[in-house]
Amino acid sequence: MTTVNDSTAGSAGADLTNEEIFAAHEGGKLGVQLTTPLDTPRDLSIAYTPGVAQVSRAIASDQQLADRYTWTQKLVAVVSDGTAVLGLGDIGPRASLPVMEGKSALFKSFAGLDSIPLVLDTTDVDEIVETLVRLRPSFGAVNLEDVAAPRCFELERRLIEALDCPVMHDDQHGTAVVVLAALRNAAKVVGREMSTLRVVISGAGAAGVACAEILHTAGVGDIVVLDSKGVIHSGRDDLTPIKRELAGYTNPAGLTGGSADALAGADVAIGVSVGKLPEEQVETMAEGAIVFALSNPDPEIHPEVARRHASVVATGRSDFPNQINNVLAFPGIFRGALEVGAREITDGMKVAAAEAIAAVAADDLAADHIVPSPLDPRVAPEVTAAVAAAARRDGVATG
Amino acid sequence: MTTVNDSTAGSAGADLTNEEIFAAHEGGKLGVQLTTPLDTPRDLSIAYTPGVAQVSRAIASDQQLADRYTWTQKLVAVVSDGTAVLGLGDIGPRASLPVMEGKSALFKSFAGLDSIPLVLDTTDVDEIVETLVRLRPSFGAVNLEDVAAPRCFELERRLIEALDCPVMHDDQHGTAVVVLAALRNAAKVVGREMSTLRVVISGAGAAGVACAEILHTAGVGDIVVLDSKGVIHSGRDDLTPIKRELAGYTNPAGLTGGSADALAGADVAIGVSVGKLPEEQVETMAEGAIVFALSNPDPEIHPEVARRHASVVATGRSDFPNQINNVLAFPGIFRGALEVGAREITDGMKVAAAEAIAAVAADDLAADHIVPSPLDPRVAPEVTAAVAAAARRDGVATG
Repeated sequence: MTTVNDSTAGSAGADLTNEEIFAAHEGGKLGVQLTTPLDTPRDLSIAYTPGVAQVSRAIASDQQLADRYTWTQKLVAVVSDGTAVLGLGDIGPRASLPVMEGKSALFKSFAGLDSIPLVLDTTDVDEIVETLVRLRPSFGAVNLEDVAAPRCFELERRLIEALDCPVMHDDQHGTAVVVLAALRNAAKVVGREMSTLRVVISGAGAAGVACAEILHTAGVGDIVVLDSKGVIHSGRDDLTPIKRELAGYTNPAGLTGGSADALAGADVAIGVSVGKLPEEQVETMAEGAIVFALSNPDPEIHPEVARRHASVVATGRSDFPNQINNVLAFPGIFRGALEVGAREITDGMKVAAAEAIAAVAADDLAADHIVPSPLDPRVAPEVTAAVAAAARRDGVATG
Repeated sequence: MTTVNDSTAGSAGADLTNEEIFAAHEGGKLGVQLTTPLDTPRDLSIAYTPGVAQVSRAIASDQQLADRYTWTQKLVAVVSDGTAVLGLGDIGPRASLPVMEGKSALFKSFAGLDSIPLVLDTTDVDEIVETLVRLRPSFGAVNLEDVAAPRCFELERRLIEALDCPVMHDDQHGTAVVVLAALRNAAKVVGREMSTLRVVISGAGAAGVACAEILHTAGVGDIVVLDSKGVIHSGRDDLTPIKRELAGYTNPAGLTGGSADALAGADVAIGVSVGKLPEEQVETMAEGAIVFALSNPDPEIHPEVARRHASVVATGRSDFPNQINNVLAFPGIFRGALEVGAREITDGMKVAAAEAIAAVAADDLAADHIVPSPLDPRVAPEVTAAVAAAARRDGVATG
């Protein structure tokens, strides 16, 4: 028996065998279920012809009734082109399917939402947008998943413009929401105001860019982002459009150089890349430092090593304290958005989700408890309520 | 309380109220279910990260493994553009959704197949084909539904060419398969050979064309098809391409004129249109006549009236004997095709399905029992086995 502990599949502390993993995937992880019985001729006459004609006719007269009498208003399309799947990279749509089915399972399990994996045999942004526009009547929201950067930024923006429903690239915003929640609580633990923190984000992919955006929105004044070439600053001539945007609102001190230059004296280090946070650099951070080493399965610095120099440490792994996991965010964000018929997911809804997640952990806040457990059943309902309320405040609710 | 008995929604003999119909549709008729548990951190590690990476990696190395480790090989896309929905016509994709959800419910209930309604906000054949080609990795088969004729013929042909999986327009072939099954048994009841029957098909839409094709394939030598202008013959200059094709292999006697001309002396009348089969014309049919009046909810001739002049009468309704209903065919056809990884659905598979349906009713064959009940649990497994065997014979099975 082989166990899953190599660098790609990683370890979650569980001693998983390939045998049990593949057995659990036999035939896939999803099925369709009937919510209305089909056992008698009368059942058939209600759910199919002739009864169903009444419902179709009602929707034909008033399209909004589709939200009430079909499954679409609780249905999320989990959409991927398979170009950035876990740590495996561009493995294509078919190979991405088990991950999308897993995502659908999480939606159901944590928020009671139905979802269908739609994996696309194209990586062309125009074609993906066009495809989802044509399919628009089939679902109520779009969770973009595992699309490679920088294409994911344009794709998400274009889909938000084209579709009158919630669209969110979870690798960006799910991560960012949980990072904001964790940072709020970590700041409390070390007795600091968010606005006074100097934050270094190592990684300018999907998660890094979204983290910078949400922390900026939430009032963090000094954010420095690193890519593989070092500190992102407006003097660089090798920046993509999205990094040029980042350079516009981050790095107010005009830092240049590499991670050593950025981390010296920093309050917070957030790793969202495959790079490393070397111990000798973390050592140079400010007193009461906060380190989120979120790469999976191998954090940018081992949490026990980080803990020698930092007051609060979090990772993406379940086998260390403070697991920063998207599942804390996306089920409730989509459920809240769908419940009020939100046309989009605003920054206000994302920040509200982060505050709700932080609040669940606030009762017994400690350096090793800044976020709730991913399995904490209180989280999704709290996030749902907060997101729905924020959608109303932001004027994007329709229901 | 209003009851469903008007001409569009029709009556199935059940005294349905709008209240109970809409109540049964609240929130839609479908949901997603998990086939693997997600209750513990260990479950999460198996179904999602890190465990799922093993499965994704395996599929990346061998794409065929997607059939085994995802839900696609038991997943049917139920696809419609909403242009020919029940008797309601072109009511659009949203209003067609309750019918597609009903279809998915039938797939699950009768054949244990999962399916997802994909309704499209385009009626352009090129765009529909393009969309499904891009989505190809997401499903295992396509059930086209409620697409208007004559566009449905081109769309189905183009999809069969473009996709390496089973594609079937059920309004055509599901109906045709059950008609063939019923006609085989009706012929036995009246002591005739199929090959000697003179068959008149009233209606040259999706169902009429497919009935003509399958009866021709099954060896019926004399078929005459009527459209709204009368008998289809090669002398007419107003024929669409599909009707021109029909003219090529039907009407060997070169009949012209209308339904009166066609029905005089005919052995079989099959109504698949909104037109009528007048009693005075049915009266002119041959001794031992067979009448299938399949329009719903209003048969082309009332079955009790037809019975005065015909030896065997069938309708599409559940409140008269001999209900010819597609649900006898499509669940087993798709299940059989998917079980053996068929690349397409051949004529041989359709004929095999018809024979299996006929065989289930053969034990207690009678003029008022030429097809099994739509709820007969023996049908789908028998059809599945027959279709799978035919796929192997026809060389289109891969699994």
